[in-house]
Amino acid sequence: MEYDVLLSMLEKREFKELKDEMENMHPVDIVEMLEDGLEYGKIDKRQMILLFRLLAKEEAAEVFTDMTSDTREVLINALTDSELEEVMEEMYVDDTVDVLEEMPANVVDRLLMATDEETRQKINALLNYPEDSAGSIMNIDYISLNKEMTVADAILKIRQVGINKETIYTCYVTEKKKLIGVVDVKDILTSGESRKIEEIMDENVIYAKTLDDQEEVAETIRKYGLIAIPIIDHEMCMVGIVTVDDAMFVLQDEATEDISIMAGVSPSEGSYFGTSVFRHAKNRSLWLMLLMLSATVTGEILGRYESAMAVMPVLITFIPMLMGTGGNCGSQSSTLVIRGIAVGEIEFKDIFRVIFKEVRIALVVSLILAMVNGLRIYIMYDQDVMLAVAIGITMIAVVVMAKTIGCVLPLAAKKIGLDPAIMAAPLITTILDTCTILVYFRIVTAFFHI
Amino acid sequence: MEYDVLLSMLEKREFKELKDEMENMHPVDIVEMLEDGLEYGKIDKRQMILLFRLLAKEEAAEVFTDMTSDTREVLINALTDSELEEVMEEMYVDDTVDVLEEMPANVVDRLLMATDEETRQKINALLNYPEDSAGSIMNIDYISLNKEMTVADAILKIRQVGINKETIYTCYVTEKKKLIGVVDVKDILTSGESRKIEEIMDENVIYAKTLDDQEEVAETIRKYGLIAIPIIDHEMCMVGIVTVDDAMFVLQDEATEDISIMAGVSPSEGSYFGTSVFRHAKNRSLWLMLLMLSATVTGEILGRYESAMAVMPVLITFIPMLMGTGGNCGSQSSTLVIRGIAVGEIEFKDIFRVIFKEVRIALVVSLILAMVNGLRIYIMYDQDVMLAVAIGITMIAVVVMAKTIGCVLPLAAKKIGLDPAIMAAPLITTILDTCTILVYFRIVTAFFHI
Repeated sequence: MEYDVLLSMLEKREFKELKDEMENMHPVDIVEMLEDGLEYGKIDKRQMILLFRLLAKEEAAEVFTDMTSDTREVLINALTDSELEEVMEEMYVDDTVDVLEEMPANVVDRLLMATDEETRQKINALLNYPEDSAGSIMNIDYISLNKEMTVADAILKIRQVGINKETIYTCYVTEKKKLIGVVDVKDILTSGESRKIEEIMDENVIYAKTLDDQEEVAETIRKYGLIAIPIIDHEMCMVGIVTVDDAMFVLQDEATEDISIMAGVSPSEGSYFGTSVFRHAKNRSLWLMLLMLSATVTGEILGRYESAMAVMPVLITFIPMLMGTGGNCGSQSSTLVIRGIAVGEIEFKDIFRVIFKEVRIALVVSLILAMVNGLRIYIMYDQDVMLAVAIGITMIAVVVMAKTIGCVLPLAAKKIGLDPAIMAAPLITTILDTCTILVYFRIVTAFFHI
Repeated sequence: MEYDVLLSMLEKREFKELKDEMENMHPVDIVEMLEDGLEYGKIDKRQMILLFRLLAKEEAAEVFTDMTSDTREVLINALTDSELEEVMEEMYVDDTVDVLEEMPANVVDRLLMATDEETRQKINALLNYPEDSAGSIMNIDYISLNKEMTVADAILKIRQVGINKETIYTCYVTEKKKLIGVVDVKDILTSGESRKIEEIMDENVIYAKTLDDQEEVAETIRKYGLIAIPIIDHEMCMVGIVTVDDAMFVLQDEATEDISIMAGVSPSEGSYFGTSVFRHAKNRSLWLMLLMLSATVTGEILGRYESAMAVMPVLITFIPMLMGTGGNCGSQSSTLVIRGIAVGEIEFKDIFRVIFKEVRIALVVSLILAMVNGLRIYIMYDQDVMLAVAIGITMIAVVVMAKTIGCVLPLAAKKIGLDPAIMAAPLITTILDTCTILVYFRIVTAFFHI
């Protein structure tokens, strides 16, 4: 819907028509309309609240769930307790928990007041799982069957209880709460009505535990192409499921987090525009400061070779190129290794295979670069062969060193329990700058006896 | 299964037991066992082929689908035509197409010979869609209903045909092949048997077109939390579906591709170890060469200020720090903007909001850095206030410039149809190196009248 249409309908108080219009929209699109409208100043808060109130109960719950926490807070402050209660009643428990986790304590109290006792207990149980654990993102509604049931019984059970469950496409077979099998609705629907669940269930269940990291759980869902994965507690009892749509968001958030860290930015939960200027500055300053101070070491070393540069001023002109190439080579290697670790291809035990591979790549790459650069020097600096050779040797040494350090550091970080992503471009470049300057002046001072 | 157990079973020719063992494994785990075994030299090719032959037909097809193309080629060369035919018969058409797309022409011919006429036609139709389009990854098997059917009819149809479909959890309502509605199996199962499909279907269908980019389609699946999305052709006729498990792989591949480009590596389809040394070298050399030659510009400019550095040799020691900080600031901004573009938060129209935000962040960050650095200079360089002030001013200018250029270039790249990811660290750093040196020497030469 265009904003001018929307606004004119609001102005003419055509609420019935607006309600119908929004009923035909996907909740995700309604959220986009409301939030973009606020962000670009097309609608004001009062209008946003009015539009939200026009939504049908079920749709309102979904819209509320999908919103950013900022928009949600505007609504929480505006809605009456009974309105809030209606919205919360329609929400899935796991979504309620996600909402609560982002809210200030006084708002949480108000929201919890608006739910019934049973739900409140479930919510409290979920709130106790550590952040980023499977337990904290799982859904406690799922369909459990028992192995004695026939297919016909199972279909009946699904028909009766399925309407309240977020996903019903995988059913779990439990015995005294212990997970003993899994059966797809597809298999139930395509098996004879009198067959026992026991006969068609798969006993090799892929599951995760409540305290597993959410990223690992999402990765498992992706790897095996699952629609949902059962979550069990330390007593092997089934307590919930994590669904594929949640897994997709987890993987996207983790990729964003990795990319931020790789750019030397402390990751934050919020979106780019949703994060304040001071918060952004805080997320970026720490790394910059650390790197700035580290770079002074390179500067000091450079200062030590002042006399060499006084004798041969041309040496200074190659510094940016050598430092740049070293940094780029190192960050190419570290980035590919970091990604390989993230997607599970590379492990610490592969370290020697990785080094062997990188060294060979470095030799090929550096020979090409040294030749191109040698040719350039030969042409631009009056056919100075000695200079071309000296810079060429430096280039080969720098590239081999950069690629070796670049592939080893992320693996070493992983080994000692750090996030490998911190070993990406900014840090590796700073480390390599120092090494490059040292290697360069060692080689040229020896070569030209200065 | 441990490799020593596996090998001893192979040696004792306990094929029946091996077969049973593998039947209890997930196909994804079998692939991992075979490929890791080959890679780490635990089993040889002959043993791998033998193990594959032990698999039940259906499992063999899944294992074959999930393998890397290298392993697949080993099998294709070893299997007889009738064995291949059996495997291909069990594969979904879209998976067959994925397999064929990676194979050399003579192998494709052999594989196509092994399929029946009808499947061959379907395969050829799919092979004609451009790479990376929705058409090229879609599945042509799905369940279509018509609106006159009752819920009971629909359940009967699902029971009859569902067993051959990769996903049955969303059914599509078509009329003369045109897509007119969508209905979840969940809704079918939980509605009265005599209700018409027409009454329970949702007419606001979220769909994609055959020529849409696969990344956009995957992003839509993620955004709306779908299990599958219908794909329609230019005549609005439904031709297939893309499922959530394929979407997850597309998103992961695209993230890997973005991260590669951001590290100055031409993206390749293969995995890290699956790519040869020369291919790796080729993927990395082009950018390195370009950046190396660009860096010579910075070197030349540096050479021009030789006389200034001769007068004040201390100036040289600040170069690595200023160049490093400029590059890091720029790559922080460009990375966050690139990611914002990738996840759909930032668009070109936001350019002034982004610049305004980055400039404010730059002012906060640069003031902090200038103060810390000023203090360091004051202490380390005999309380030289003038020097501290000059470097401080340079720092502020460099950071503001770096953050502005860093946020503008990815948006500009997007605007002119380039991949914003190329404007990440390596390129932005090289550009900023030149700018930093210029700004630095302009300021200090003016400041100290040299």
